[in-house]
Amino acid sequence: MVHQENFIVSTVRRGMTEVTDPVAAVVARTGFAAGVVHVFVRHTSCSLLITENADPTVRRDLETLAQRWAPDGDSAYLHDTEGDDDMAAHARAVLTGTSVSVPLAQGELLLGTWQGIYLWEHRSHGHRREIVVTVTGE
Amino acid sequence: MVHQENFIVSTVRRGMTEVTDPVAAVVARTGFAAGVVHVFVRHTSCSLLITENADPTVRRDLETLAQRWAPDGDSAYLHDTEGDDDMAAHARAVLTGTSVSVPLAQGELLLGTWQGIYLWEHRSHGHRREIVVTVTGE
Amino acid sequence: MVHQENFIVSTVRRGMTEVTDPVAAVVARTGFAAGVVHVFVRHTSCSLLITENADPTVRRDLETLAQRWAPDGDSAYLHDTEGDDDMAAHARAVLTGTSVSVPLAQGELLLGTWQGIYLWEHRSHGHRREIVVTVTGE
Repeated sequence: MVHQENFIVSTVRRGMTEVTDPVAAVVARTGFAAGVVHVFVRHTSCSLLITENADPTVRRDLETLAQRWAPDGDSAYLHDTEGDDDMAAHARAVLTGTSVSVPLAQGELLLGTWQGIYLWEHRSHGHRREIVVTVTGE
Repeated sequence: MVHQENFIVSTVRRGMTEVTDPVAAVVARTGFAAGVVHVFVRHTSCSLLITENADPTVRRDLETLAQRWAPDGDSAYLHDTEGDDDMAAHARAVLTGTSVSVPLAQGELLLGTWQGIYLWEHRSHGHRREIVVTVTGE
Repeated sequence: MVHQENFIVSTVRRGMTEVTDPVAAVVARTGFAAGVVHVFVRHTSCSLLITENADPTVRRDLETLAQRWAPDGDSAYLHDTEGDDDMAAHARAVLTGTSVSVPLAQGELLLGTWQGIYLWEHRSHGHRREIVVTVTGE
């Protein structure tokens, strides 16, 4: 069986917003015992990822590294119509991905103790981000 | 229910080929209302990704960055049997991934307005690339 | 239908361990003809990936590049409670991902000839890593 819901995250600025709780709420509404939970973001300048949920310095260090992986305002970029963060945001999204998927077992997300699901806003300013959760299970 | 089809993309050289249309055609043939569309490439020197589908300079800038992430012919590489682009291609494929998956809703791929699905050829010369589309839905 | 099993990989040190065979064994036990095989690791300092399975120098070169993508003991890191490899491990895991998924056809994993599924331990020392395989098919 398939259960699908959308929700919106309004980001404030570049950085991560945890979405584990709203995803878990969708899973709870399915009543499924086992399956796979697919989480997808419908944009190309933000991404979804699973990372450490305890120490916020992990997310700050990921920002530091992302600035090296795809620097803002790099002189080599041809695509800069929306500012210094435009191309960097697309590249950061390609490196970290548009979806995550997590097993569902005994009616719950089977995340590890230290795993959280995060929306990573890569643009400098906040945006309205649409997330689609599709649960396939029984 | 599961519906599965394969198709071939013959790449000409390093760079991206959009595959959104052939994937959408498979989805249309399923007749499913909702589900998840899984797209997989059976090779380790190309990848599948979702990125911006409007301005081609985004894809050109991604090539520029990929050359930094995994330079061709780096003197540190031990693996160079097929040329300067051999190890770089494997590394670019690891960073950007072997599959993408997209929700299916109301019988269609639920991509955002600016999202396209691309096959990224990482070898200098073209290859015959086999893509498997598996749709799980109802 | 959904079939789910867990298994443990005890890593010895940083590096890759192939897990294609234990994943294929789960697939064989399902008896499904077609579907998608989802493989997930419940930790944030190792990752799952699909890469070249023939020449071990590919995996050694990936280690060399990963050290550039997220250097051990970088002076910019704020998160270093568990040592020089701590933050590097989280970043390497974010770049390479927590899950892979592979199509299932005619009762088998539809990997390409040169594709293997690997657990990549990113910590310097070995750990007990839990992997969840969820097969959705029929």
